[in-house]
Amino acid sequence: MHLSAAVAKVNKWAVRQGGDTLEAIERPDGGISLVLSDGQRSGAAAKQLSRWVVRKVVTELAEGVRDGAAARAANDALYVLHGGKVSATLVILTVDLAAHALVLTRFGDLSVFVRTPEEGLHRLPGEVPSLGFYRHARPAVETLPLDSGLLACGFTDGLIHAGSRTGRQLDVGAAIEELWAAEPTARAVADGLLERALALDEGRPVDDTSIAVLHIREGEGTGPRHMQIEMPVPDV
Amino acid sequence: MHLSAAVAKVNKWAVRQGGDTLEAIERPDGGISLVLSDGQRSGAAAKQLSRWVVRKVVTELAEGVRDGAAARAANDALYVLHGGKVSATLVILTVDLAAHALVLTRFGDLSVFVRTPEEGLHRLPGEVPSLGFYRHARPAVETLPLDSGLLACGFTDGLIHAGSRTGRQLDVGAAIEELWAAEPTARAVADGLLERALALDEGRPVDDTSIAVLHIREGEGTGPRHMQIEMPVPDV
Repeated sequence: MHLSAAVAKVNKWAVRQGGDTLEAIERPDGGISLVLSDGQRSGAAAKQLSRWVVRKVVTELAEGVRDGAAARAANDALYVLHGGKVSATLVILTVDLAAHALVLTRFGDLSVFVRTPEEGLHRLPGEVPSLGFYRHARPAVETLPLDSGLLACGFTDGLIHAGSRTGRQLDVGAAIEELWAAEPTARAVADGLLERALALDEGRPVDDTSIAVLHIREGEGTGPRHMQIEMPVPDV
Repeated sequence: MHLSAAVAKVNKWAVRQGGDTLEAIERPDGGISLVLSDGQRSGAAAKQLSRWVVRKVVTELAEGVRDGAAARAANDALYVLHGGKVSATLVILTVDLAAHALVLTRFGDLSVFVRTPEEGLHRLPGEVPSLGFYRHARPAVETLPLDSGLLACGFTDGLIHAGSRTGRQLDVGAAIEELWAAEPTARAVADGLLERALALDEGRPVDDTSIAVLHIREGEGTGPRHMQIEMPVPDV
């Protein structure tokens, strides 16, 4: 099989420093994790917070800690650091080659969509508190066997807030289905969702928005890996 | 301006676990770093070592430590851990938005090529000991102002060893120039170099090979960011 992962990310309009952080890490026993956090509020403080959360989670994952435990470690440490007064959201999208599983972990009211060839698209159920608010919070963890055709999509709430300035809203589920029908690739879904959000906000996003998509498809189990990053470089 | 980064990576033939590790990290005060390490020997021990080096460097960079100091920290810590008996190579390719500079840092006999529109392609001069061998080793650090047209290419020695089974060798500099002339993008250079190495090895690479390319070009200084990862998923 083959994994395609795609990320699309934009900062709130006129804010140089977005509040979202997203990192990809190779897992010590094979596979990758995309770790996505949105810090409460926006600007430099939010960025510092989401970066702290992602670093904490990535450091745990790099040591072989499982996703749920890594997320709980971040919750507990953030709670102790700020006495429950500061919070962030967290999504971990993992392809775990050792367990041959897709593992989806989240803290906070984040939507994660999963699509399988048999069951179509659905939004993962359940409400989960934000990370850092409660001493004994637990993340929601969903585990699915790695299968060809599997699609998973996580995003920060900027995608939900898109259009709010003009009273419009994106139906994320419907948008994923349309984009997927037009071109069934991770990149088309991630870039297409961001494009639609930007259109609703007339190119001036009301919030930081990050979208991460994983797609498992047929393919040879060996061969080269590729990564590509495209980002604007502000002038001095 | 705009940054395109591309990575292409393949494991030694018939070795499931390659010895190279490559990670990308967003820098705390803006920009990204690609951190690439090749552990001595191959297989699981080499992978553990290169992962340790990359984690050490990434952790330092995430805390705001500058590249040269992060590389020295990894050297010193590895030296103390193994008494100078274990070594790795290291390249850090950085776009530092705070300093508005491209920073190229390396330990070990690794080639890094830089191309500017004015001066063409050249290989960074100087020999640098491998990381972990000496108590007081210093990395080579090259700093260039961020300018449109700038290209930087770092790779592990698998690219140099390609073809050695059949007595052939890749002229990396000439290959970069040809690929760049045909299609001046980071992706074309990274993927093209790997393709040529694989061709010399008849599809059975004699060593782990990782290639990282950064390209700064004209472009708007704001807008979305994109990342894409493609990797094989071995069957159970």
